Amino acid sequence: MQLPVTARPDFHITRASHVVLQVADLDASREFYTQVLGLVVTAQEDDVLYLRGIEEACHHSLVLRKAPAPSCARIGLRMFSEDDLEASLAFFSAHGCEAKWVDVAHQGKTLHVTDPVGVPLEFCARMPVEPRMITRFAEHRGGRAQRIDHYQIVTPHVPKALEAYTAMGFGLSEYIATARDELRGVFLQRKGNPHDIVFFHGPGPRLHHFAYFTPEGQDLLRACDVAGALGFGRGVERGPGRHGPGHAMFVYFRDPDGHRVELFNTHYQVMDIENEPVRWDPADTNVSFPWGLPAQRRWFEETTAFEGVETTMSDPPPAPLTLERYLAELP
Amino acid sequence: MQLPVTARPDFHITRASHVVLQVADLDASREFYTQVLGLVVTAQEDDVLYLRGIEEACHHSLVLRKAPAPSCARIGLRMFSEDDLEASLAFFSAHGCEAKWVDVAHQGKTLHVTDPVGVPLEFCARMPVEPRMITRFAEHRGGRAQRIDHYQIVTPHVPKALEAYTAMGFGLSEYIATARDELRGVFLQRKGNPHDIVFFHGPGPRLHHFAYFTPEGQDLLRACDVAGALGFGRGVERGPGRHGPGHAMFVYFRDPDGHRVELFNTHYQVMDIENEPVRWDPADTNVSFPWGLPAQRRWFEETTAFEGVETTMSDPPPAPLTLERYLAELP
Amino acid sequence: MQLPVTARPDFHITRASHVVLQVADLDASREFYTQVLGLVVTAQEDDVLYLRGIEEACHHSLVLRKAPAPSCARIGLRMFSEDDLEASLAFFSAHGCEAKWVDVAHQGKTLHVTDPVGVPLEFCARMPVEPRMITRFAEHRGGRAQRIDHYQIVTPHVPKALEAYTAMGFGLSEYIATARDELRGVFLQRKGNPHDIVFFHGPGPRLHHFAYFTPEGQDLLRACDVAGALGFGRGVERGPGRHGPGHAMFVYFRDPDGHRVELFNTHYQVMDIENEPVRWDPADTNVSFPWGLPAQRRWFEETTAFEGVETTMSDPPPAPLTLERYLAELP
Amino acid sequence: MQLPVTARPDFHITRASHVVLQVADLDASREFYTQVLGLVVTAQEDDVLYLRGIEEACHHSLVLRKAPAPSCARIGLRMFSEDDLEASLAFFSAHGCEAKWVDVAHQGKTLHVTDPVGVPLEFCARMPVEPRMITRFAEHRGGRAQRIDHYQIVTPHVPKALEAYTAMGFGLSEYIATARDELRGVFLQRKGNPHDIVFFHGPGPRLHHFAYFTPEGQDLLRACDVAGALGFGRGVERGPGRHGPGHAMFVYFRDPDGHRVELFNTHYQVMDIENEPVRWDPADTNVSFPWGLPAQRRWFEETTAFEGVETTMSDPPPAPLTLERYLAELP
Repeated sequence: MQLPVTARPDFHITRASHVVLQVADLDASREFYTQVLGLVVTAQEDDVLYLRGIEEACHHSLVLRKAPAPSCARIGLRMFSEDDLEASLAFFSAHGCEAKWVDVAHQGKTLHVTDPVGVPLEFCARMPVEPRMITRFAEHRGGRAQRIDHYQIVTPHVPKALEAYTAMGFGLSEYIATARDELRGVFLQRKGNPHDIVFFHGPGPRLHHFAYFTPEGQDLLRACDVAGALGFGRGVERGPGRHGPGHAMFVYFRDPDGHRVELFNTHYQVMDIENEPVRWDPADTNVSFPWGLPAQRRWFEETTAFEGVETTMSDPPPAPLTLERYLAELP
Repeated sequence: MQLPVTARPDFHITRASHVVLQVADLDASREFYTQVLGLVVTAQEDDVLYLRGIEEACHHSLVLRKAPAPSCARIGLRMFSEDDLEASLAFFSAHGCEAKWVDVAHQGKTLHVTDPVGVPLEFCARMPVEPRMITRFAEHRGGRAQRIDHYQIVTPHVPKALEAYTAMGFGLSEYIATARDELRGVFLQRKGNPHDIVFFHGPGPRLHHFAYFTPEGQDLLRACDVAGALGFGRGVERGPGRHGPGHAMFVYFRDPDGHRVELFNTHYQVMDIENEPVRWDPADTNVSFPWGLPAQRRWFEETTAFEGVETTMSDPPPAPLTLERYLAELP
Repeated sequence: MQLPVTARPDFHITRASHVVLQVADLDASREFYTQVLGLVVTAQEDDVLYLRGIEEACHHSLVLRKAPAPSCARIGLRMFSEDDLEASLAFFSAHGCEAKWVDVAHQGKTLHVTDPVGVPLEFCARMPVEPRMITRFAEHRGGRAQRIDHYQIVTPHVPKALEAYTAMGFGLSEYIATARDELRGVFLQRKGNPHDIVFFHGPGPRLHHFAYFTPEGQDLLRACDVAGALGFGRGVERGPGRHGPGHAMFVYFRDPDGHRVELFNTHYQVMDIENEPVRWDPADTNVSFPWGLPAQRRWFEETTAFEGVETTMSDPPPAPLTLERYLAELP
Repeated sequence: MQLPVTARPDFHITRASHVVLQVADLDASREFYTQVLGLVVTAQEDDVLYLRGIEEACHHSLVLRKAPAPSCARIGLRMFSEDDLEASLAFFSAHGCEAKWVDVAHQGKTLHVTDPVGVPLEFCARMPVEPRMITRFAEHRGGRAQRIDHYQIVTPHVPKALEAYTAMGFGLSEYIATARDELRGVFLQRKGNPHDIVFFHGPGPRLHHFAYFTPEGQDLLRACDVAGALGFGRGVERGPGRHGPGHAMFVYFRDPDGHRVELFNTHYQVMDIENEPVRWDPADTNVSFPWGLPAQRRWFEETTAFEGVETTMSDPPPAPLTLERYLAELP
């Protein structure tokens, strides 16, 4: 199987940066994200709420806009400098990606780009600086989410996404491919750990989840306990459990609008040239779940639409081992 | 609803003590209990393996005997002194419970009693002293199980069990009763926390599980991770999760023979006269699961027979909210 | 060395119950105990503040009274029933201990007793019931102190205290004695773990510290971090560290008035007749500190006076290995 | 105060890579590093032991060589590719740094460089790949050290080190400077968190410590407990505690030869252009210790010599607040 090689383009994307979601009720979302996940509020202006993780010095990593129907407006990526933004225009033009300058509150120069598989991206290089809350221990809540880490996107065009993102300088850390070399999932990274953006095969482009990092298993457990205490207990959709690929301990929540957010703990550093991408076989159930139960069917199937972006169906892969099937097939 | 009052009989039962299981393969069981649960081996003699928790100074809290078919031979309770054992004979005789002196290796004077609902009990007051391993940190493994805590028994005669055990001096800490005052479960304790023995309604008498205490949530997570790493990952049957009744964080494992063992963390102290038993309503799903997913049907239905004891069917209660039903009814 | 044997008196003391302290500034104390230790406020009435641990169903385990000078008014012990209180009068009379009935707010019948070494005790059997906060996870703060566990008293009369408390039914779990059989410390317990009350040799009677239990090492670390964040960081007097005797992980704080409070995690169960008291040698430095640094001299020497009780000097024991001496003697 | 600006040189250093120590007894060191820190052995060849953290896929991050006297032979840094190594030669030549190609076992092309303040560096871009042990949970020991993170060097020439390393592309994340703008310490990083190499003012160049990352506070506590259980307890020199600068929870050990190694948990991500270096004032004691006790004098003063490199004295800064002084000045 021939995998594309990471390029060194003329611009430097540094990391996953922020996600912009449409939600029905800002108060409900605010309670969920501050009490259960443990994010802190930077600002609430009219119908927009800006949140960040407890270690983040940037103005926002999660933007919630009040809107009649839930969707994801955009996912954000950082470039190192505004010169990098300028330098990227030629690249996007050469790759047929629509790109335009926009004004976005609380961000420096910002570029909107639709990536080759239709995902609405937002690049910027600067945000206003806010105090890191990491040592304000008396104010930490719930899961103590520290910083945004990555997105997972569903698309029927995984190989195309892989090609485009390696051209943008992303490294492939892990991937999931069948015995017949069909790519099912790719983990792509810029910041030196397993992923900034992940693409999985399915009807899309749609957002499967976004993820915040928190360092300790206890934080995952406390987030669940607080969720239970505050009436969000049914929103603990999957976990706490252990990932096969990536090796992290995780828990997935559905927020009050059904958006899926993962809280997960540390994973490994990947920044050495000799590290080959790790291949996983989807037929190996340890890929999905080293212990405990597999995910519910809804975890595989329910995703968030991107605002104004149509979903393209995909050839369904062989059915995954869902929790429903697992239970039905128990001896 | 009239609950029986705890008596002060002439003998003092102090705590849940040990469980005797029949298993098919001592080597497989030894690996599971020492590596995943973290028990330590006191001795292996012929076809019997004696284990204890890392803080236990007694010779054994788990006895595994090689046998062709899995079952539970007996569950053990401690009395404070051998005088208490003598003093209890009159009580058991008055209650029509068969009781006889037996010789049991590595125990002092031992009394076999069949309780009023048919559970084969074993009372003793002394065991040989072994070193507590609690500060031998370099030797701790997996879940670091510290000490045996309680048993859960299934029986069609919960009220009868409640009556008998309160007569033996047990306190009722929590119970589960329908709106029509049908008792579904009772938590009975001697040692000052929620339970030494629990009875739930169902076909029995059968052993639902026995439980080891470990103080930290991290120990539960590590036990799961070690289970996954050593090929016992599918045996993580339920959890990690949070109990409604009792409030503990838990994880349930099925051992290589299918016996169910719970590892759970701390719960509250209950030793004050003003503490009324806590009542739970089985129709309230928070009783089963404050957050996450309910238990699989097999968790409710699969239990271990007591050796040579017939199972009596029960009127089934209204079906519990199993994981299967929960998933089927999701919107 | 002849140790006294635990008696079975006609009354049942069940556990350490509550401590009554005099403090200068209720607001400062309230912030410290609720934010750093994590206690919850039951009530504040005039110049008295009542607090309890997050699992406690009793009205109070810590009572703070505004007063011009810091001291400890009394330490409280529970008896099982008010009949036990009545039954104890004869005992105290026979042992020459002053005992009198008093009215105390938010307690049932209450008996004030001066013990044989001069400690002002307060016995009761009932308090009003308050909700356990143990599952109100969103409201937990700092060290999540769960329940009061024990007191440590300094007295020049350790053997006399041992004699008196074993006569009251306490079991001796551990003790510290020199090679010449001089008793330096005794751990006495009623509730089935290592201690409800501890006596150490020194000028007294004075209160060395009182201790709250919390199950996880992370809670100790978080209490320290919150202390640092809120300006109580210099009050982290010793630890986090590991005890030799008792084996618990601990941290000692000085509260705003200089009272010493320990937060510590689980220790072992001790309720079997074959468990002999564990003897420790004060000349073995592992007794003081299995790892890290020994305690400061002030930890050994600074204690809280009991209100209106004179301190009797003691023959000083050979100087303990203090932090000051340890540092001075380093190669 | 004028701080140098990070350059973008023609070569890419990626991270702290490995440290080479001389030790007296390989067996003692092996026990300490594998049982207490939790490193895994890649190979032992004649008188050289190669170790790595549990997540590391590279052949070694710690090399121990048997030698008559303890010292540090070299500290290693990674470049991204061997082309980067070639490209760096011009830079080192221009900066008057001696650089030469050497053959080093289990490393690709390797360059020895003496940095402008005299530190013997070793650059390489490749090592043989070893399996990551991060999910081999049953084999994890002690502190579960995951990966090497940074070095701390003592030098009388901090400004010169800062100048040289920013020219090499390092970013300055935090620094410590007096009110009179005397630089006392600089945190320099390439991998996107606070430090790969730190320089503090003092007689040097000498190695103060090297540090392994481990994600959870419990791992620090377990490392201490294992140290105590295995006879390394007096080697717990400082902590567990919380850093002011960098914000990490830490514990410092002295290994059997007196080399100092830090185990510490996560710290924040720093990769955005708007993040200004954080300045700390050494006169603010929160810089040294947000809670608990300051470090012993020996922590400030005892360091490891680089093999064959002479130590240059420095003007001593105003005496830091050592534990000895703190204790002497307590009221």
